[in-house]
Amino acid sequence: MSATAGQVIKCKAAVCWAAGEELQIEDIEVEPPKANEVRIRILHTDGLLNIIQGICHTDEYTRSGKDPEGLFPVILGHEGGGVVESIGDGVTSVAVGDHVIPLYTAECRECKFCKSGKTNLCGKVRTTQGAGLMTDSTSRFTCKGQKIHHFMGTSTFSEYTVVADVSVVAVDKQARLDRVCLLGCGITTAWGSVVKQPGIKGSTVAVFGVGAIGLGVITTSQLVGATRIIAIDTNDGKESWATKFGATDFVNPTKLPEGKRIQDHLVEITDGGLDYTFDCTGNVQVMRAALEACHKGWGISTVIGVAAAGQEISTRPFQLVTGRTWRGSAFGGVKGRTEIPGLVEDYLNGKVKIDEYVTHKRPFAEINKGFHDMHAGDCIRCVVDMD
Amino acid sequence: MSATAGQVIKCKAAVCWAAGEELQIEDIEVEPPKANEVRIRILHTDGLLNIIQGICHTDEYTRSGKDPEGLFPVILGHEGGGVVESIGDGVTSVAVGDHVIPLYTAECRECKFCKSGKTNLCGKVRTTQGAGLMTDSTSRFTCKGQKIHHFMGTSTFSEYTVVADVSVVAVDKQARLDRVCLLGCGITTAWGSVVKQPGIKGSTVAVFGVGAIGLGVITTSQLVGATRIIAIDTNDGKESWATKFGATDFVNPTKLPEGKRIQDHLVEITDGGLDYTFDCTGNVQVMRAALEACHKGWGISTVIGVAAAGQEISTRPFQLVTGRTWRGSAFGGVKGRTEIPGLVEDYLNGKVKIDEYVTHKRPFAEINKGFHDMHAGDCIRCVVDMD
Repeated sequence: MSATAGQVIKCKAAVCWAAGEELQIEDIEVEPPKANEVRIRILHTDGLLNIIQGICHTDEYTRSGKDPEGLFPVILGHEGGGVVESIGDGVTSVAVGDHVIPLYTAECRECKFCKSGKTNLCGKVRTTQGAGLMTDSTSRFTCKGQKIHHFMGTSTFSEYTVVADVSVVAVDKQARLDRVCLLGCGITTAWGSVVKQPGIKGSTVAVFGVGAIGLGVITTSQLVGATRIIAIDTNDGKESWATKFGATDFVNPTKLPEGKRIQDHLVEITDGGLDYTFDCTGNVQVMRAALEACHKGWGISTVIGVAAAGQEISTRPFQLVTGRTWRGSAFGGVKGRTEIPGLVEDYLNGKVKIDEYVTHKRPFAEINKGFHDMHAGDCIRCVVDMD
Repeated sequence: MSATAGQVIKCKAAVCWAAGEELQIEDIEVEPPKANEVRIRILHTDGLLNIIQGICHTDEYTRSGKDPEGLFPVILGHEGGGVVESIGDGVTSVAVGDHVIPLYTAECRECKFCKSGKTNLCGKVRTTQGAGLMTDSTSRFTCKGQKIHHFMGTSTFSEYTVVADVSVVAVDKQARLDRVCLLGCGITTAWGSVVKQPGIKGSTVAVFGVGAIGLGVITTSQLVGATRIIAIDTNDGKESWATKFGATDFVNPTKLPEGKRIQDHLVEITDGGLDYTFDCTGNVQVMRAALEACHKGWGISTVIGVAAAGQEISTRPFQLVTGRTWRGSAFGGVKGRTEIPGLVEDYLNGKVKIDEYVTHKRPFAEINKGFHDMHAGDCIRCVVDMD
């Protein structure tokens, strides 16, 4: 039992007061966890995602004010790692002192979704999480007398946060938390998007967008035995990254002959198209290209990128009628509580890359610079250390 | 060996001379089959498809001039049945006297597609079939000294037609040809679209469009054990048809409260959406509704309808990212030569409905009236007898 258990904790957090504003490091109060809640001392966070065409910059999307469902003031951050400081009544999933990763995709194991065996989406905390609140419809964060919203059920841009007990997983303490914290979103998403699809072994794959998600899809495709892995990015600087992670080919669509569409080029160089394609950009035009680059009769395209509000994907229905499939997944279809411990073991055994994604480190006070790093497009992942 | 083998046959055919014109019953000449070709005496044809919102009115789509790839003059018709009159060199798949069904989806068993084990699309005759010609890039039809195009590799609106040997299947002579000829398109398409998808047993299904394809999807869903089958059509007259074929619910989207979208209504009445949906309309707005009526996390929507040229389907990518899958199939994913004989046996054993679809019969001379029947929307299938 920690000395702070049951007490309000005063600590630092990066608060976003209004859409479009820079984050402010503020002194905040964090209430103790209520029943079925867990208070975590966050040690590292990686909301500062960089994927060149912009995928999964979820925190930045909300900060910028482009997310019409964004709520303010808010403590952002959805990729982090920490230590359990205290637990509320009824918590059995984790214990004080555990190394944990907060999960924006909960896993209650009791709802219709969890019990379906068909999806990792969980219904238990969905509504209140979407409203920026804990399950009792209140917040645990206060700053200058004002209640502050939670974000994605995680709010890792704070020295302490409170999450639902179904929204956190304990991991092996032998694993460096400043590395496995990255399993909270991008790397796990990419890994799951590949391993959850049977048939990639012996098949051809195209990956649109060489950021952290794209690199994760590339390395996992290599891991499961894809025979050809084509990476596509508008930035030639990504070719060496793609190759290092296992890509066999690199195509820069801006370097094609004028008027040549990337999907037509890919169909040509693969004798009919790819068996599997992945959009890791969040750009709806790229999503279309990824579908149309699929082989007639059996190609499957997976949307991983999150598009901006109001944007739509389109294609001719003939693309589907002639045997292509358009699908997507959230968090790679991974059930966080059940599967992340195994991923951590795979990391410790050298089977899953994590270290290789970390290009930048920053102290918490420089969190806004992390956002700027992201915009500059020269980093894959920037880990922020809270201490 | 028939007396006409090796001879040019003079017979009647319904020729469409130009886009938008009525068919003209003409005297034509049909050349003997070349190597790997089969000449068939057509006894019944059913190009006169009626599905209320317009699916698979392929012949009519081309006749009307709306198909930008339509070639004229042409002998239309892609759903028919007949008897093999003669065969060219090298034909082993069928013999003179066999009862056969022409197949617009060939099955060569040798190409990349056929050998993939993943699709029923076949590449062997695709290019020349699309050009309205036999595989040697010539036509077997002449009328008034002018060469006439083939259509979909079948051209069943003729007393005699010539098809590739990979584009025809022999069926049990005990089965009435004026019934099993319907397996040439709609009924088989619907059957395959359901049976080729695992998981429909014990699941919920919504079927958009209650024409022949929709009815086929309904009855096959019942056959494989769907627990709830919701039929959707703008024509209340289709409710009794849907119920007779196995639907448990009927919804007329035009009767919903103003502003209520059919997908939202279906999600409400099914506690989250359908496990499987099928578009049997060819309307791109309906295709979207069918996808969005799917249950989050696992719903799968299949596009069966053929949309008009240039039309596109759209949705928010969030629909896919949250676990819905958009797919389609042509000819229901059925390999005609391999699977139709079994379907005919299922028909003879009472397991697969065919008789129930036939609402109209017309002699060949009234083939244009068949088209008018279709436009009137009061028939499911009209079989045209050539004699």
